[in-house]
Amino acid sequence: MPSTNLTFTHRDEHRAWLASQAALPAGFRVGCTRFKFTPHEAPKPAQMTLTLLALDEPTTAFAAMFTRNAFPGAPVLIGRQRLAEPKIGAVIINNKISNVCAPGGVDASEKICAATAQALGFTSAQILPSSTGVIGWRLPVEAMISELPAAARALAGGSILPAAEGIVTTDLYPKIRRAEVGAGSIVGIAKGAGMIEPNMATMLVYILTDIAVPRAELRPMLARAVDASFNAISVDSDTSTSDTVVALSSGRVPFNDWSTFERGLHQVCRDLAEDVVRNGEGVRHVIRVTVKNTASLGLARALGKAVVNGPLFKCAVAGNDPNVGRLIQAIGKYVGAHAPGTNLSKLSAHMGGVKIFADGVFQLDPTKESALVAHLKAAELYQSAPSPDGIFSAPIDFPPHERSVELEIDIGNGAASASVIGGDLTHEYISENADYRS
Amino acid sequence: MPSTNLTFTHRDEHRAWLASQAALPAGFRVGCTRFKFTPHEAPKPAQMTLTLLALDEPTTAFAAMFTRNAFPGAPVLIGRQRLAEPKIGAVIINNKISNVCAPGGVDASEKICAATAQALGFTSAQILPSSTGVIGWRLPVEAMISELPAAARALAGGSILPAAEGIVTTDLYPKIRRAEVGAGSIVGIAKGAGMIEPNMATMLVYILTDIAVPRAELRPMLARAVDASFNAISVDSDTSTSDTVVALSSGRVPFNDWSTFERGLHQVCRDLAEDVVRNGEGVRHVIRVTVKNTASLGLARALGKAVVNGPLFKCAVAGNDPNVGRLIQAIGKYVGAHAPGTNLSKLSAHMGGVKIFADGVFQLDPTKESALVAHLKAAELYQSAPSPDGIFSAPIDFPPHERSVELEIDIGNGAASASVIGGDLTHEYISENADYRS
Repeated sequence: MPSTNLTFTHRDEHRAWLASQAALPAGFRVGCTRFKFTPHEAPKPAQMTLTLLALDEPTTAFAAMFTRNAFPGAPVLIGRQRLAEPKIGAVIINNKISNVCAPGGVDASEKICAATAQALGFTSAQILPSSTGVIGWRLPVEAMISELPAAARALAGGSILPAAEGIVTTDLYPKIRRAEVGAGSIVGIAKGAGMIEPNMATMLVYILTDIAVPRAELRPMLARAVDASFNAISVDSDTSTSDTVVALSSGRVPFNDWSTFERGLHQVCRDLAEDVVRNGEGVRHVIRVTVKNTASLGLARALGKAVVNGPLFKCAVAGNDPNVGRLIQAIGKYVGAHAPGTNLSKLSAHMGGVKIFADGVFQLDPTKESALVAHLKAAELYQSAPSPDGIFSAPIDFPPHERSVELEIDIGNGAASASVIGGDLTHEYISENADYRS
Repeated sequence: MPSTNLTFTHRDEHRAWLASQAALPAGFRVGCTRFKFTPHEAPKPAQMTLTLLALDEPTTAFAAMFTRNAFPGAPVLIGRQRLAEPKIGAVIINNKISNVCAPGGVDASEKICAATAQALGFTSAQILPSSTGVIGWRLPVEAMISELPAAARALAGGSILPAAEGIVTTDLYPKIRRAEVGAGSIVGIAKGAGMIEPNMATMLVYILTDIAVPRAELRPMLARAVDASFNAISVDSDTSTSDTVVALSSGRVPFNDWSTFERGLHQVCRDLAEDVVRNGEGVRHVIRVTVKNTASLGLARALGKAVVNGPLFKCAVAGNDPNVGRLIQAIGKYVGAHAPGTNLSKLSAHMGGVKIFADGVFQLDPTKESALVAHLKAAELYQSAPSPDGIFSAPIDFPPHERSVELEIDIGNGAASASVIGGDLTHEYISENADYRS
């Protein structure tokens, strides 16, 4: 993947690169506003950012995919309805509260849509709402409505960076990816750091293009791109109730080479998906598993997920401990439970290019052990150290893109293959998530 | 479950209680020996305990169940063959190395069986081997064979406690449970702390009885007892490659009331299963989930497992944070991915007796929030604090049995129900598992 070739040594370098990627396609403006409020459910004041992604004119060319979690948030319920609408003119996004299974949640999101429509001169049905944050809390509807005109006044073309920054929660840095296509471009932003094993989508992703791609082309292309990108990552195996991927075209740039467009769309999605993992909560090692020669793509991806979701293997990676027994355990756990007929007798496995398993047995010796430890250490995104009161947090504000733990699992029994990207399981993940709301 | 009524305030009280449970059934002896060796794969010396469970005479009345992991250890491969043998006379168990996918693993285990048979005057085929510990390493066969006579010389009746202590690895304390049945008894011991989401079995469990229960009765009874106990727990969702449950009858006490025997067997299995979770690696809160009114027992248990295996919910519990949004997310993740037709509209949920969800929405207010925090705090097994160098370890050496986080999920759509027991996800788990082998 091209993104692993990026090397940054300081936050400012990363910021300069983000700025170089951020040019908004023609026909779009973004605006944000940030304000304090007191949630209904907790007496402590909190901060929310409202982010508006607006088209100059509503478009028929839009696509969206949503979480498969059986308790979707109110914005997801509304978003699914919006797919049948003739046009979409804007997306209104809030962080801090996800509006999932909260009393009156759908009504609250519809009120935000109505206020957004009024500020922009569109109709409510042309507004797509998105929310991310604490599950179960109610949106502060009145505060949001009174702040909406400020977000509308802030609308500006030029750069998508304010939106990439506005939608984050626990993210360490904003995420922007682009592809130039013909005389236009595809630009995507993502929010996502935890509760990341998307199914059909990742947390919040918005992809804007000025290429005039019709709705009927855009929707299946987005589905294929999501399948090969956001459906092939996992930070912690949890699936958000808010996962959303939206693609919008302003139609400003005529084009008709859809295979070129689709390549660009796939690249933007794959790069954003890797960014989400690389920014995953507590992730100190990015783990890239390529599973080769399986009977089906589904099995290849499932085995890759079994590896990156195995808690004990994730812990071993966190400790730079090449405990490859836990890797084989994770594969055997999946096959034993879900694919018991699979022939594993030809399985071979490599880590960092070192052969660790073949012919039914481990292929280990002290020299290989040292090489594996060196591979794991070289892939660390940062050094782990607690604060004096025992809290661990990631001491970085830019992503080291060039570092990954590389695993190759060859099943030797079929022609399908897949790559899955995940992360390790660290003290930083526990510190982040054992007291997230306080 | 009766075990939650046990209260200990000091290690010595727990030890005295264990001793009161430890009387060996007639016809059995146990013996252990501990020694140092240098593994083939790592230059550092290590320690191993050999534990021998011997019948005075080989018995036809034995049963065993093994892991469903598709990469089972050599002792599991041999154990499955032993099920067809006419008689079993002893079990030989080692910790430290699990003999899984190690070169020459089956041959190594057979050599240990042969040496055990020679020491006891039995045949090799009458010996059942068990191993637990690091996956992938080779057994130190010669060192084990030269130590075997010492274990045989140590054989003694009276107490099973030496065996309960001999089989452990990262366990904090030995685990013994018993049931009196007629004029005899059923006594079980368990080893298990991590890599615990058994499928058909938990790590290593040995159940001895002097009740004369025929093989044809014992095997289906063990299968049912394991299903309701070791298949309803999870520490970390990983499935060991060595999981084994063995039941042996010496046949000394005539009996024929199999429903009474089966009740005793279930009780011993359920109690040991809870002990394994309560001693789970890094577990600071035991979480008991009762899922009621589902369409099937399988769905009830799967939903319970989805809750106790949800990393973000586990982290919230670790932090005494009643983030019930993550609980609902975990249920929705499972249903969305694996049971999409399930009607969740009647779902209600309680934590610690407090209603948190009903009618499709959360039922939360600040008073309930305080009650939930109090429930979580009262269920803590110990206070968490790092050492000065940032390592977390459980500062207890006895199990606080009376403390659990209690969840009740009523699906309102069927007649099946199940209880599942699991634990939280803590810094202690990461410290234990990020550098296990060093």
